[in-house]
Amino acid sequence: MTSYTAPLDDLKFVIQHMVDFDQIQEKSANENLSWDVVEAVFEEAAKISSQVLAPLNGTGDQQGSRIVEGKVVTPDGWKDAFKEITEGGWVGLGCSETYGGQGFPEVVAGAVSEMFQSANLAFSLWPLLNQGAGDALLRHGSDALKETYLPKLFSGEWTGTMNLTEPQAGSDLAAVRTKAVPNGDHYLISGSKIFISYGDHDMCDNIVHLVLARTPDAPEGVKGISLFVVPKMLVNDDGSLGQANDLRCVSLEHKLGIHASPTCVMAYGDQGGAVGYLIGEENRGLEYMFVMMNKARFEVGMQGVSIAERAYQQALAYAKERVQGVPFNGKPGDTIINHPDVRRLLMHMKCQIQAMRALTYWGGAQLDLAHYESNDTRKQTYQATAEFLTPVIKAWCTERGSEMTSLGIQVHGGLGFVEETGAAQFYRDARIITIYEGTTAIQANDFIFRKTLRDGGATAHRLLSFWQEEVQAITEPTLQENKAKVVCALSHCKTALDLVIERAKSNPAKIASTAVAYLDVWGYVMGGYLMLKATTIAKKQLQDGADNPAFLKSKIACCDFYITHILPQGEASLNTVMDGTDAVWGLSNDQF
Amino acid sequence: MTSYTAPLDDLKFVIQHMVDFDQIQEKSANENLSWDVVEAVFEEAAKISSQVLAPLNGTGDQQGSRIVEGKVVTPDGWKDAFKEITEGGWVGLGCSETYGGQGFPEVVAGAVSEMFQSANLAFSLWPLLNQGAGDALLRHGSDALKETYLPKLFSGEWTGTMNLTEPQAGSDLAAVRTKAVPNGDHYLISGSKIFISYGDHDMCDNIVHLVLARTPDAPEGVKGISLFVVPKMLVNDDGSLGQANDLRCVSLEHKLGIHASPTCVMAYGDQGGAVGYLIGEENRGLEYMFVMMNKARFEVGMQGVSIAERAYQQALAYAKERVQGVPFNGKPGDTIINHPDVRRLLMHMKCQIQAMRALTYWGGAQLDLAHYESNDTRKQTYQATAEFLTPVIKAWCTERGSEMTSLGIQVHGGLGFVEETGAAQFYRDARIITIYEGTTAIQANDFIFRKTLRDGGATAHRLLSFWQEEVQAITEPTLQENKAKVVCALSHCKTALDLVIERAKSNPAKIASTAVAYLDVWGYVMGGYLMLKATTIAKKQLQDGADNPAFLKSKIACCDFYITHILPQGEASLNTVMDGTDAVWGLSNDQF
Repeated sequence: MTSYTAPLDDLKFVIQHMVDFDQIQEKSANENLSWDVVEAVFEEAAKISSQVLAPLNGTGDQQGSRIVEGKVVTPDGWKDAFKEITEGGWVGLGCSETYGGQGFPEVVAGAVSEMFQSANLAFSLWPLLNQGAGDALLRHGSDALKETYLPKLFSGEWTGTMNLTEPQAGSDLAAVRTKAVPNGDHYLISGSKIFISYGDHDMCDNIVHLVLARTPDAPEGVKGISLFVVPKMLVNDDGSLGQANDLRCVSLEHKLGIHASPTCVMAYGDQGGAVGYLIGEENRGLEYMFVMMNKARFEVGMQGVSIAERAYQQALAYAKERVQGVPFNGKPGDTIINHPDVRRLLMHMKCQIQAMRALTYWGGAQLDLAHYESNDTRKQTYQATAEFLTPVIKAWCTERGSEMTSLGIQVHGGLGFVEETGAAQFYRDARIITIYEGTTAIQANDFIFRKTLRDGGATAHRLLSFWQEEVQAITEPTLQENKAKVVCALSHCKTALDLVIERAKSNPAKIASTAVAYLDVWGYVMGGYLMLKATTIAKKQLQDGADNPAFLKSKIACCDFYITHILPQGEASLNTVMDGTDAVWGLSNDQF
Repeated sequence: MTSYTAPLDDLKFVIQHMVDFDQIQEKSANENLSWDVVEAVFEEAAKISSQVLAPLNGTGDQQGSRIVEGKVVTPDGWKDAFKEITEGGWVGLGCSETYGGQGFPEVVAGAVSEMFQSANLAFSLWPLLNQGAGDALLRHGSDALKETYLPKLFSGEWTGTMNLTEPQAGSDLAAVRTKAVPNGDHYLISGSKIFISYGDHDMCDNIVHLVLARTPDAPEGVKGISLFVVPKMLVNDDGSLGQANDLRCVSLEHKLGIHASPTCVMAYGDQGGAVGYLIGEENRGLEYMFVMMNKARFEVGMQGVSIAERAYQQALAYAKERVQGVPFNGKPGDTIINHPDVRRLLMHMKCQIQAMRALTYWGGAQLDLAHYESNDTRKQTYQATAEFLTPVIKAWCTERGSEMTSLGIQVHGGLGFVEETGAAQFYRDARIITIYEGTTAIQANDFIFRKTLRDGGATAHRLLSFWQEEVQAITEPTLQENKAKVVCALSHCKTALDLVIERAKSNPAKIASTAVAYLDVWGYVMGGYLMLKATTIAKKQLQDGADNPAFLKSKIACCDFYITHILPQGEASLNTVMDGTDAVWGLSNDQF
């Protein structure tokens, strides 16, 4: 099992030079948001990731969370790590200062997430849940609810959960059946929920469940769902904990990965009804959830970066140490990193990760800019860009991130299949990220129908024009070959976009059948655009005599690899979008 | 956990109509090899797969093989299944009749392997090992060794193993250190071996280990390795079992998948030396192993078909049963197979499997034709074709097969991540197939350096010309669009081939760095060629009034899907071959 070292050089390069961080600083009007402070935060987060979270990752996987005498018990060391994270103020890093958060922008909080999740994905889910539940409460909760719960969620004194899924409904929230019956100043909640991450655990005293449920006279479907706060322990007026609420964790799922994250089946109201407090207005629960979704999906997209980075580091360490055979043009004793295909696998991982990281932070920056911008028109433009990028970040980065963990195993050969090596855990852990927070298909539908078509393709066209101009303006002679390939790739997006707009007029089911390929075109092409952008920045810095030439030159080399080994997938996906919609429907159900 | 039903329609279509089975029949001069007999064998194998092997697959995974009181114990039911397989004569189905086998051709024995491996991959490894060990003995062993061991291996009364890997050596057999010291009529073997599948177990009385080792004065490297038979129990002159040999299983690996297959660390000679018998001549061990490798690699390529088929059946059953949301143009209650992206995923699995199956049996048929052919020139041509196809079958089918198990999970959504569903097991089990019996990189190197370049590209050019002619001859009007695409795809192979031949003149390390992409070009393109071939056959049969029109029409629809969704990957790989060799070497070791 190898260690984890935060990739601070690439992280800082992306945030400082690729995502308009100076504008985020300026618009945020936050005096504390100096680059020095950001660097200090990163250094500290890197230390905690390596020293506190990473060492627990393997043992957490082996032990898993389990039910002992009716209570969920987390693995050894989990409680201590919890204490360290909460006491360091890490949970509320990007949360509202009004309620005890530290108000850092998403690109900074996201970078800390990246590191924590690389170090220990199973552990690092609960801070995300605190942030997500807190965000929903902050936007839509009453003052009383906010005062009672937000400081505890942002400090991490308590943890939060999201209760959406029910056994019969899966991703189809229209089918939610959990009941909420008004009862004085609260509601009585009853029903069962599944796939509830950290639905119960032993790390703190209280858990704040956010639960989707229906009131008795609610309309059917998604327009009759309300959102409730249902605490594990009721809270007295003075803020102290009262009696236990009527809810429990019935069982834990036995999962392929993230064993240490307790995935609970929850039962509400076995004894007559759990006390729940309405957030906002009745029947608007789904709307409230959707508001949070961009950020939550952005965070899960980040998990693709995180798990791929960790798998890469593990594979790299092995490849630099393992001697086996003599490489071409090499000598006895050379390590396997010198074998052509091992090097190819590592390059693929490294370059794919860089592209995903650039894309993810760029999306995070759009969220920040939308948040801080005061001009309404500009705010809407930033928001539209962020919303456009979100499904691509979520789907493309999780799919590719999951693939990278497979390459990580391959670098190890037979030892990669042996659990003690550690590479297999990343492969197992990663397999959930293309599923939860909306599957890849759900992201692709969101991307094609809401993000592309709802404004008639306006945002998509605007972004494409902007990137084309930016790329066309590159004059550096050594970049002309890559420039031509990116210009061509951007035209693939345009082709796909025009096709989708044209086809939307006739048959939505048809375009849905190549929606994932359509999203992939954009993912691969945006990756290419960003890798080229990184190269132009690196070239400029080198010309200006930067003090990290080896790193900057590596950015240029990684662009060459991305464009020749990864970008061609974008064209393959375009071919599928162009010609492949009918073929999905070539068989009757019986012919499968 | 769903059941397994052998895909007999597609299996029979491929073997009867796509791989010159009539020629195999004719050349084999085996009167028993009628299609009726083959069908009867398939029906029976299908029954055993569904009824005996498939039901043990999930429990085998959960229990795993384990060491109890120093002995390896297989999961519940394993011994009974072993009895059923051996008593049915399945182990020696494709083995020499001289020693009790049944002498069926590889395409028939391979089909039985496909079914058994779909039903239960972990179980079905041992018959392959028997066949492999038996094959080596048959070709190179003395009459005495053959008479003692072959009938027991082919009947399955005993099992076989292959002992190649050592801890320090991995895939680099030049580094093998196990010793073999002459001692009268035998040798004394000492050393340790790892990754020995079924190195010990409780299903039968004896295990026939084939062990690579060095004699005291052997030259260094691969030219100093000899091959030995080292039985677990010594065999008396009358064939009865004597005392235990000096060898033992030290421990079992804790693996990502195929838990039920005991992967042993073996120690030979702790008490002074295990009795071993030389196969053939000293120092020719590696040569003997290589002779078997085509078949062994063909069999592992088949595992890609098998595990993908099983994952597909599991996903299909779920998609036809699960109701969630209302599909486009659908109605409440419609199952998720009607959702565009679920259907896309299932189509992708089905079509990829069909292409892999066609490729694999076609390769198996070349092995058969080479085996039975009496004319030397033709024999060599068949052999060259089989050897050319083998690394593509092994690498492309295992890589794609492993990917298909991931799509299988995706169809299930969150439930795919829950172990009890069963989809995750296929994903875990499949992850070894791109590694063992030579990693994908090793296959790609074999393909590019031995199979493509050693004859100066002659075999590659011959096959390409043959396929181009065959495709160009298609006159059916409805196939012209797909024909044009396959013609174009075949030209991609030609482009890649010419490039590789040209580049080989200067720098082998460079071509090795895109060897996997080169292999992938051929894999995807041959898949396209075969899917089109299947379509032309199906069209013809439909015109002739065949009695299975629904199936034949499905073959045509699957070709459309393959060409629009999967074949574009071939062009993407070609782009990488053309432009991506330098990029692999863009970083120094320190820059990773």
